[in-house]
Amino acid sequence: MNKWTEIKKRMDILDAMEHARNKILYDMETGAPSKSFPKIGKTLETLSRLYHEQMTELGLLELLQSCEKSEVSEIQWKMIKELERNLNKIIKIPADEYAAFNQLLITSHGKWLEAKKADDFSLFAPTLKEVVAFQKKYIEYQGYEANPYNALLDDYEPGLTVAELDVFFADVKAKIVPFLQELLAYPKMKAIKKAQVGKGHFPKAKQKELMVFLAKHVGYDFERGQLAESAHPFSQSFSNDDARITTRYDERDVQSSIFSVLHEFGHAIYELNIAEDLTMTPLGGGVSMGIHESQSRFYENIIGRSTSFWKPIYAAVQAYFPESYGDVTLEDFILSINTVEQSYIRVEADELTYPLHIMVRYDLEKQLFNDEITVEQLPELWNQKMEAYLGITPATLAEGVLQDIHWSQGSFGYFPTYALGSAYSAQFYHTLEKHVDINTDLLAGDLTNITAFLAENIHQYGKSKTPKEIIFDTTGESFDSTHYTSYLIDKYKKMFG
Amino acid sequence: MNKWTEIKKRMDILDAMEHARNKILYDMETGAPSKSFPKIGKTLETLSRLYHEQMTELGLLELLQSCEKSEVSEIQWKMIKELERNLNKIIKIPADEYAAFNQLLITSHGKWLEAKKADDFSLFAPTLKEVVAFQKKYIEYQGYEANPYNALLDDYEPGLTVAELDVFFADVKAKIVPFLQELLAYPKMKAIKKAQVGKGHFPKAKQKELMVFLAKHVGYDFERGQLAESAHPFSQSFSNDDARITTRYDERDVQSSIFSVLHEFGHAIYELNIAEDLTMTPLGGGVSMGIHESQSRFYENIIGRSTSFWKPIYAAVQAYFPESYGDVTLEDFILSINTVEQSYIRVEADELTYPLHIMVRYDLEKQLFNDEITVEQLPELWNQKMEAYLGITPATLAEGVLQDIHWSQGSFGYFPTYALGSAYSAQFYHTLEKHVDINTDLLAGDLTNITAFLAENIHQYGKSKTPKEIIFDTTGESFDSTHYTSYLIDKYKKMFG
Repeated sequence: MNKWTEIKKRMDILDAMEHARNKILYDMETGAPSKSFPKIGKTLETLSRLYHEQMTELGLLELLQSCEKSEVSEIQWKMIKELERNLNKIIKIPADEYAAFNQLLITSHGKWLEAKKADDFSLFAPTLKEVVAFQKKYIEYQGYEANPYNALLDDYEPGLTVAELDVFFADVKAKIVPFLQELLAYPKMKAIKKAQVGKGHFPKAKQKELMVFLAKHVGYDFERGQLAESAHPFSQSFSNDDARITTRYDERDVQSSIFSVLHEFGHAIYELNIAEDLTMTPLGGGVSMGIHESQSRFYENIIGRSTSFWKPIYAAVQAYFPESYGDVTLEDFILSINTVEQSYIRVEADELTYPLHIMVRYDLEKQLFNDEITVEQLPELWNQKMEAYLGITPATLAEGVLQDIHWSQGSFGYFPTYALGSAYSAQFYHTLEKHVDINTDLLAGDLTNITAFLAENIHQYGKSKTPKEIIFDTTGESFDSTHYTSYLIDKYKKMFG
Repeated sequence: MNKWTEIKKRMDILDAMEHARNKILYDMETGAPSKSFPKIGKTLETLSRLYHEQMTELGLLELLQSCEKSEVSEIQWKMIKELERNLNKIIKIPADEYAAFNQLLITSHGKWLEAKKADDFSLFAPTLKEVVAFQKKYIEYQGYEANPYNALLDDYEPGLTVAELDVFFADVKAKIVPFLQELLAYPKMKAIKKAQVGKGHFPKAKQKELMVFLAKHVGYDFERGQLAESAHPFSQSFSNDDARITTRYDERDVQSSIFSVLHEFGHAIYELNIAEDLTMTPLGGGVSMGIHESQSRFYENIIGRSTSFWKPIYAAVQAYFPESYGDVTLEDFILSINTVEQSYIRVEADELTYPLHIMVRYDLEKQLFNDEITVEQLPELWNQKMEAYLGITPATLAEGVLQDIHWSQGSFGYFPTYALGSAYSAQFYHTLEKHVDINTDLLAGDLTNITAFLAENIHQYGKSKTPKEIIFDTTGESFDSTHYTSYLIDKYKKMFG
């Protein structure tokens, strides 16, 4: 058999197994019967063992390494290198440690829930220390330059370094932290909060109809997607012809689902626009968490909280929920969806304070992996940083250091990509404005040109370019966070000042 | 590694891969976006290649054969033998022929659809001949005793023979064919047809509520199951904690969904009651198509079309659909759901004529595989048999020989199990009556004892007993079709005579 044919066969198997795993997980999130979970867990365990075996025990790495650049096309070569990169990360971890870590994560999740419920960090600390210890060993296995935390960042945002993030967050700290206090004092901000726009009862069935309308309005193709319901909104793609989104319905709050749908649409449209020759290959997904998040945040915030976007469709919202929105002007609606709050919970944070929540986590993770602080110090330092960045101190651990699931899952280095995504999106937006008459298009209810620009410059490439290449080739410059901080300050000043 | 541990590991992989495949298929049937199908098809193809590899290329058969009975427990031994039986069936087919057959089936399905649409058998005949030719080779590979058709029957109903089926269908032919004409002449039958009970509009949302009510009434546990929607109703289990059912909603006819739900519940409850030590192993499913169908037909027909079953819940149907059923008495409702018709389409056939539809197919398949008739003769012979058994002649092929998908899928020997299931269910019913006061329980809306009897005697064993053992151990005798023919004639005479 031709070497590429053999490699492709192995790639297909890995892709099919990933599809299977994700389909089972998707099913669990969107409706699998509750008592089926333990047995589905066993099935997933078996599939993951088989996947690991396919990756590591059948000479795949040797096969990839034996292939010369001259034997394959340029894109095939990139596929080989991407798979090799992932494979190398796994292979560097001794199999028994890998298994032990996966065991630990099961305990860890339980301990985190327990500690959160009891408001007692000491119930989680010993397990978290073990998780961190494993991550430190992982860093050693992977190797790193300059800063150990870079090894973790690389898993979510290939090539991203502490040096770059330090510049980014310094900019955020210098500009957004003081601006937050200024903004909160604006009379218009105080007035819109007092007005309590958008209260009422929003029946699920009606919300569902509105969400389908909204998804179609932004260009979601229901013949290549699905809008399902889950406890936490997420998106999941299986190919460039099948990228699904989920939402949840809170009958006291329709905005929650509106912005979830716009957010997840951004993730889905990225996956749906990946080129035909990349889909279902090692290059067939979004290139990094940060670039992915830039697309979701773009539709959720930059587009989805703008006046031009809502002007042509706000009447639909009013028609669906006349009791809550019949008397609310478009202007007040826009102000209400851009209200800024000093809040404790990251996932509920507004566009402006969101990066401050991330900064708390970035500081702590970086220090932790540079041995500058200990696990035990996390609750206290968390509160200090919340006070410094947001001006508030959480009263409970559930509102503080224990609010996120990530650390219990061993995900360190993930959080920064959330803020980075917003920052990337502002930079893309800055370029997009030069190519597309965004306001005119939005006012006409037409997102075709906007999405086409993103598809052409970002989506289609999948992982065939690096995040840095995507940014440079799209915007003509390297990542520059001042687009983001300027965008935020300009936007809120214009709106509320 | 211990030999059993190694075997169990391999069994787990096969089970997990089957789970994955079935989950993907289930998703396709219950809502996957339409344009995702071609790519999902590729994924399924890859998974099936991997499955085949796991079955045949990694020394599994040798591993199983190397294991001595003394090395394992009795139940482990049965698992090994069951897997070996399945493996042997696959291994006997040369790999390239197996692949060619799978290719052929793709063409075959298209040709069948084409021929059906054009009402032209000659468009399908050449492909069907190839399918039959492959099946004949398959029979030779598998080997058989007495009759070549036995090799095909064994795939769906292990141990079933033409000799047994001939006795069964002779009984049906002798008693049901003449009884049908007698029954159609009963004034009560004519009257209920004229009354046109159950016409109206049945909104989907209301039907869904009724179906959930009904499923709960018969004991379906929604924490271990799910009621989804699909083009054709089916059931799919993933473990004894996860057996799902689907239905479809026709807004002009609520009965269609009612009896689909009861039918699929029978399949699901079988799978849900399989013993804990058998689930997710080679013994962890229903033992045969016939026994499976006996459970679905039992709840659909014997229970689900009886007066005692409906008496305590008919008011609910009336409350959901007062316009259609408010004025219909329980007696008329029962008569209406037991109406008998000379009809062309098997899947729409009533309880009495159903086996006659099957008999047409049995006769033809048996003759085909005994070289007594040719593929070209099928349409004409089909019509002759329809006339002889049901007293009607189809006007089109879609109402005749081309109505079923089965032959285009290479499924020969499958049809008889449908009739056999009904016959088994009557025999089980005959025994059940001696142990459970069925009418009293049904009138009290309590199916616990009824289902417990089936669980104890049939369900729990999975594939750890043969179909013949299940029948003998439950009823104290071998399969005897006179229970079925007597049940049918008694029932309809009592109801309409």
